[in-house]
Amino acid sequence: MPSIMRKMNIIARCQSQYRSNALASDLNACHHSFVLAICRHPGLSQDQIAAHLCLNKSTVARALVQLEESGYVRRVASEKDKRLLLVYPTERMQEIHPRVLEITKEWNRKLSEDVSEEDMERFLWVLASMEKKAKELIGNGGADA
Amino acid sequence: MPSIMRKMNIIARCQSQYRSNALASDLNACHHSFVLAICRHPGLSQDQIAAHLCLNKSTVARALVQLEESGYVRRVASEKDKRLLLVYPTERMQEIHPRVLEITKEWNRKLSEDVSEEDMERFLWVLASMEKKAKELIGNGGADA
Repeated sequence: MPSIMRKMNIIARCQSQYRSNALASDLNACHHSFVLAICRHPGLSQDQIAAHLCLNKSTVARALVQLEESGYVRRVASEKDKRLLLVYPTERMQEIHPRVLEITKEWNRKLSEDVSEEDMERFLWVLASMEKKAKELIGNGGADA
Repeated sequence: MPSIMRKMNIIARCQSQYRSNALASDLNACHHSFVLAICRHPGLSQDQIAAHLCLNKSTVARALVQLEESGYVRRVASEKDKRLLLVYPTERMQEIHPRVLEITKEWNRKLSEDVSEEDMERFLWVLASMEKKAKELIGNGGADA
């Protein structure tokens, strides 16, 4: 069986480089996923962001501290449960969001421009079933906020 | 167009968590790719490792310093060109290599167990064409050490 994951990891890393080149910001590669998640779902808790991105909680906590220090997010204690920190984008994050979205769409489009519509449909179907399986394998089956 | 990359990133991050859970080592998620590359191709230069993994050179240099400090690699100046640092696995890295390989194969197998052979063949064909395209898009078209 050829390695599925080597190819996926290579594609993901190429995207990171592409994004960093295209978006001259101080955000690191991983942070782009936070921009997309936080601007799309403002007010998620740290744990919800971790489940949404399939990252572990300590990675997310560290990244959010960095993003807060750089002025990209605000973390606010929940009114209902003071132990919960809810995460909101600042104006600074909202300003770069359209460009991150645009670069992400551009990459997806370029990546698949040589693939026929029929092949792409089958590909996405298999990819979706692998995503479901991957979440199950780490006990995160229900996470799709 | 549904996001290809969100799914691939989710699958890659789930694999990281799976690997960290299965392999109780002090290596972080990204370092597993270094174990696979360095044990398979001992004596590559830092730049060759960067091209092989599609990571930028500074990321690779930082990771190799960490791996050297933890006793996983040796970096040796090339006899032919003293400016080149060649990277070799230590015994410590070679000891964990079989387990990293095993967990990677196990993950690939589990991930695809519900996919028919025919669907998998088509899937891998499209994935390979996307990998080629991704490398071209960042100007790393020839890298497949």
